[in-house]
Amino acid sequence: MVQHTQIDASFAALSDATRRGVLEQLGRADASITDLAAKFHMTLTGMKKHVGVLEQAGLVTTQKIGRVRTCKLGLHRLEQEAAWIERHRRLWDARFDELHKIVEELTQKEKVDGRQKRE
Amino acid sequence: MVQHTQIDASFAALSDATRRGVLEQLGRADASITDLAAKFHMTLTGMKKHVGVLEQAGLVTTQKIGRVRTCKLGLHRLEQEAAWIERHRRLWDARFDELHKIVEELTQKEKVDGRQKRE
Repeated sequence: MVQHTQIDASFAALSDATRRGVLEQLGRADASITDLAAKFHMTLTGMKKHVGVLEQAGLVTTQKIGRVRTCKLGLHRLEQEAAWIERHRRLWDARFDELHKIVEELTQKEKVDGRQKRE
Repeated sequence: MVQHTQIDASFAALSDATRRGVLEQLGRADASITDLAAKFHMTLTGMKKHVGVLEQAGLVTTQKIGRVRTCKLGLHRLEQEAAWIERHRRLWDARFDELHKIVEELTQKEKVDGRQKRE
């Protein structure tokens, strides 16, 4: 259950273009909330909310020194999330291969049936 | 912008344990909404909502034959989502390697300084 909650929070955090942008930015360099708000043309309040969501998911950590709150990438490295997607893609491939085979078999059968009728 | 909307919808769809469970189930075999509702101990209405979210994200398609609505995996294969997470993990690794180096350099410098003071 704890595992699910972590994955739920990560995927929810990633479902917003601004939050993904913030993570990309922090992947290049740490930044203050003020910098991030300016970069994404957003109010401080709006950016604080986004950073809060990322922080709760463990994707960002923040530290207040004096009056500046600096954001950096958190310790969560999206391992479970990458693994889940990878597993789903393997299931997807297997499933569509299976359907492809059924379609091929049906096409083959139709051809044989057609030939038998003509003979 | 269209790209963002697709990724937003996929990640939002994946942020719920039941919806991920439904995808796992459909990765093994197609299922009706009624089957899925029973399997996940949910009302039909609740399951319809979840399937609707998955359908809007292109992760599931449904087809109504007679009175039964059958669900199967959709054509969307989470390629962009896997690529985004992969890119983020590479940035993450590079960023933490960088911080690791800075810490090592500082530790090294402290050792040298300490030695110089003792001499």
